[in-house]
Amino acid sequence: MTLYSQYMIRIAYNEIVEVLSSILENRGFTSSRARMSAELFTDANRDGVYSHGLDRFGRFLRYLSAGLVIPDAEPERVWSGGALERWDGHSGPGSLNAHAAMARACELAEANGIGCVALANTNHWMRGGAYGWQAADAGYLGICWTNTMPNLPPWGSDKPLIGNNPLIIAVPRPDGHVVLDMAMSQFSYGALSRYAKEGRELPVPGGYDKNDRLTTDAAAVESTGRPLPIGFWKGSGLSILLDLLAALLSGGRAVCDMPADPDKETGVSQVFIAFSPPDHPGLTDRVVASLEAEGKARYPGKGALAHREESRIHGVAVDEEVWKDIKALLKD
Amino acid sequence: MTLYSQYMIRIAYNEIVEVLSSILENRGFTSSRARMSAELFTDANRDGVYSHGLDRFGRFLRYLSAGLVIPDAEPERVWSGGALERWDGHSGPGSLNAHAAMARACELAEANGIGCVALANTNHWMRGGAYGWQAADAGYLGICWTNTMPNLPPWGSDKPLIGNNPLIIAVPRPDGHVVLDMAMSQFSYGALSRYAKEGRELPVPGGYDKNDRLTTDAAAVESTGRPLPIGFWKGSGLSILLDLLAALLSGGRAVCDMPADPDKETGVSQVFIAFSPPDHPGLTDRVVASLEAEGKARYPGKGALAHREESRIHGVAVDEEVWKDIKALLKD
Repeated sequence: MTLYSQYMIRIAYNEIVEVLSSILENRGFTSSRARMSAELFTDANRDGVYSHGLDRFGRFLRYLSAGLVIPDAEPERVWSGGALERWDGHSGPGSLNAHAAMARACELAEANGIGCVALANTNHWMRGGAYGWQAADAGYLGICWTNTMPNLPPWGSDKPLIGNNPLIIAVPRPDGHVVLDMAMSQFSYGALSRYAKEGRELPVPGGYDKNDRLTTDAAAVESTGRPLPIGFWKGSGLSILLDLLAALLSGGRAVCDMPADPDKETGVSQVFIAFSPPDHPGLTDRVVASLEAEGKARYPGKGALAHREESRIHGVAVDEEVWKDIKALLKD
Repeated sequence: MTLYSQYMIRIAYNEIVEVLSSILENRGFTSSRARMSAELFTDANRDGVYSHGLDRFGRFLRYLSAGLVIPDAEPERVWSGGALERWDGHSGPGSLNAHAAMARACELAEANGIGCVALANTNHWMRGGAYGWQAADAGYLGICWTNTMPNLPPWGSDKPLIGNNPLIIAVPRPDGHVVLDMAMSQFSYGALSRYAKEGRELPVPGGYDKNDRLTTDAAAVESTGRPLPIGFWKGSGLSILLDLLAALLSGGRAVCDMPADPDKETGVSQVFIAFSPPDHPGLTDRVVASLEAEGKARYPGKGALAHREESRIHGVAVDEEVWKDIKALLKD
């Protein structure tokens, strides 16, 4: 979900990266790691994924302060099966761990046709789509997903027992990668919060209100904590299986092992799969053309590219209040 | 979706397999391949997946008569990258090709930690869940998916440009594997047809009626040919990416390369991934227990096991009319 509203202002990409980098360096990041982390936050806003960019920076700093995220911890390989490896994230920054894991999956794919890194004990990776774009930029097909704290009721229950476990699939294409980045809930909590803040109605029902009715009122869904899994029982089932695979393959924690508290969401499990570039000329363009021939359908990833181009020309859109709060941190 | 109704009767498992085997042997299958194909059809009904079992046998025979399915064609490896292989299905029976592909993916996983077989030029695999159960029975984690003919409008269009591209994920567990088997449409055409035949209302909206309204009337959705992707734009996007991966990795056809005619659905592309059994004792049981603690939520695969036990005791449920039609074929 991308949202652009009157609450936003435009800032130059490099200015945002400089500000975030300085703040992270003051909190124990080396210069190069601070810069990469800052770029990943800024890229999310640049591509229109406001729910997982600067909006989350404050929470990320709270993770650092609480010691849940350790700035200089780096992931370590703990087992290898050849094309499948287990890595321990050692509670490092989720975005840097995820970036390293996808890079390693691509190396494994180069050697074996397919490569997989299962990563335990890592932290929230912020915008999951980043690692799909990363794989596609390197010329690989990529799949990755993460589990999360319990934040979604499974079909048949009103208790948050499963995670919204975002899933990313990316296919490289010279004229614009095809990249899907979707959580198993119809709307992420970040998106619900943006809709609620802006007083906008959800375009389709996003969860249940206090009377057990499906509703398009984002604030009502936030208050019950009962977002809707995509496709009812189907997204619920997919969430359960993605969680099992992530925890089993990495040897890490499952959703049910985590406290249901956003400020304590740590030690998540993730999977990164890359496939070596296949030989099938023209196929991806043909599929994209078949969708666009009808005019209204668009391929996943097209919206991000359009936002990126707008950001290049006009600057990156940032919530004014969020930006003010971030700038204030420079003085800390 | 499992449905059991007054239209069904119960027949002994072995009797069904014998009847289907005889019919297939009369149509060019060797004895052992006829038996395996017959078992896969019967297993679907045994496990309550009526939409993809004997209900489809008549259509399968039409594929054979039309020469779309070649009884004695076997899949062949055409490329190997180590842990990733490309196979050509040579238009063989979809279920037998898929079974061979998942078996090979498990071998590759044994050697490399992860294994992947991408299969081109194959046919409808009938019940996709079968290959998930197969991987789990062998002790592996399995993922597989297929593309299909265009049978689902993408988000933003009312034309069937994408496939419902079923996705299967399976995790082995001694007390019952966890197996997800889901198409990207809220209901398969098989399920819509069962609901329509039985005059039952869909439990949630399944697509659009002729007035562009979401409806729970299965017959109305069948008539517009506009089933709903799970999660609106999300299932639509997932369908597009699964199609791209299947066609790219296998070197085979994408959804847009196939005619939108159920009687000409051939040359589909599929992906089979297996992971070697991970070392994480108790994890799967803990996840299942966390879901069942709440009473109403159930893990994917539980329903199939319950049906299987019922079939063991009482015989396999089969649509009476479908069974009559099948028995009549014995005389051909």
